[in-house]
Amino acid sequence: MKTETTIQGLSASLNPARAARKIIGFVPTMGNLHEGHLNLVREARKLCDVVVVSIFVNPIQFGPNEDFDNYPRTLEQDQHLLAEVGCDIVFAPTVEQMYGNKPRLTNISVGGITNDLCGEQRPGHFDGVAVVVTKLFNIVQPNFAFFGQKDYQQLAVIRQFVRDLNIPLEVIGVPITRAEDGLALSSRNGYLSAENRAIAPTIYQSLKTAEAELHAGTQLADVLANIKATLTAAGFVVDYVEVRTPELQKIEEFDQDVVLFIAAKLGATRLIDNMQVKYTAV
Amino acid sequence: MKTETTIQGLSASLNPARAARKIIGFVPTMGNLHEGHLNLVREARKLCDVVVVSIFVNPIQFGPNEDFDNYPRTLEQDQHLLAEVGCDIVFAPTVEQMYGNKPRLTNISVGGITNDLCGEQRPGHFDGVAVVVTKLFNIVQPNFAFFGQKDYQQLAVIRQFVRDLNIPLEVIGVPITRAEDGLALSSRNGYLSAENRAIAPTIYQSLKTAEAELHAGTQLADVLANIKATLTAAGFVVDYVEVRTPELQKIEEFDQDVVLFIAAKLGATRLIDNMQVKYTAV
Repeated sequence: MKTETTIQGLSASLNPARAARKIIGFVPTMGNLHEGHLNLVREARKLCDVVVVSIFVNPIQFGPNEDFDNYPRTLEQDQHLLAEVGCDIVFAPTVEQMYGNKPRLTNISVGGITNDLCGEQRPGHFDGVAVVVTKLFNIVQPNFAFFGQKDYQQLAVIRQFVRDLNIPLEVIGVPITRAEDGLALSSRNGYLSAENRAIAPTIYQSLKTAEAELHAGTQLADVLANIKATLTAAGFVVDYVEVRTPELQKIEEFDQDVVLFIAAKLGATRLIDNMQVKYTAV
Repeated sequence: MKTETTIQGLSASLNPARAARKIIGFVPTMGNLHEGHLNLVREARKLCDVVVVSIFVNPIQFGPNEDFDNYPRTLEQDQHLLAEVGCDIVFAPTVEQMYGNKPRLTNISVGGITNDLCGEQRPGHFDGVAVVVTKLFNIVQPNFAFFGQKDYQQLAVIRQFVRDLNIPLEVIGVPITRAEDGLALSSRNGYLSAENRAIAPTIYQSLKTAEAELHAGTQLADVLANIKATLTAAGFVVDYVEVRTPELQKIEEFDQDVVLFIAAKLGATRLIDNMQVKYTAV
């Protein structure tokens, strides 16, 4: 496994693969890798000849009061983990390598689906994601790109701009990886105190309960209210509990497949999770 | 020469060239081709193995009161001209082929350099250009893309987002092609009455005069005022007469290379032109 820190170095490393028309798979990450990321790499390994993983903590997707400076950077440990799951090339550029010295004037925004859910609390966040992911796509030029369904809204945003801009690759969404107690894996879980870590799986439990309620015919509004009550009682400060179509459109009745979304704070740590619920007539 | 009207057809036509690692040159146009466009194709022909020209009147770069519906569409004539100058593939998609049935949610905006000059009178115009050019770049995936310097601001916008988004191609700016009397060639010249066509070269003459004045040490503000007075006296309604650095930054003194910009209406027809003026100490 190679590590490249410059765009030029990465191009040189990828050129033989491109010339041989090999299938290139790409997993963009911000590092601090856990089993969720490694499952993305394993998925890429299955489908592709060459697997590239980027590790880049992208400043422009963090808000002014968010944790950019303190976001965990664990490159050496990440490299060991990636070598074990068969990554071929790690791309770990500096901020200067990615954004240069001259000011960036270009922005990419995805209307409609970025204004609510996580977008409401994090203005500009998805623009920052769209810009960096587009840059990385243009640098790596993969055939397939792999993203976790845990960041469901992010995945939907990426699918949307890939389609709207005719970016020549296929986006693959990979199911959420969970701890044994159901907590969705996230780099931010490391911020939780032991006590809060024990409470955190309530999010997943409340989603499972909601799924059962929906299938039993409970009204959608009541199901959402129950999640909120459960989380609040457990000590969370709820950001949102929402339901959407798989394409993130609002929905009033459980009359098709839906996705349930939760964002909630436990102490200073904001956790998100979601669950796709299949429609079944009661 | 082939003509392709679908993205899939174009990909099929380009695949052998891509597999053979041939150099692909791309000239995006809105059709109604004149010598200016043909010079772009000749430039591409010199540098590239395969030359693709797109003909697509892009609805999203026209304002509500602009001439989208009446913009001249002359595909057959364009095909004849392109065959003569050695174009290999014409890509002439429908609006539906480019934008599909589902709503487009993604926008690309280039801050700073799109808000004045032509951007002030045409809000959203350069966003529409950025989106369609990005789409075409992703569809054609050329090594080189050719644009005329006549649309200098457009060229600067394209260079900017190509750099900001790491789009893997080189942008080539090609000098303005002029009629014998100096009028910059443009599809919109065809809208001019015979009388106005005779007046139109005043734009170029005023730029040449301005260049001489600058080199003779006339103050920048006076030079711009002289252009305005000349055009107004000739019967133009001036949109703007401006001076910028080559990167479109505002400038107060003639102390480096500059570009002079004119946009002016003659009857209902809006004409633009520009001239790069080398700095020379007086």
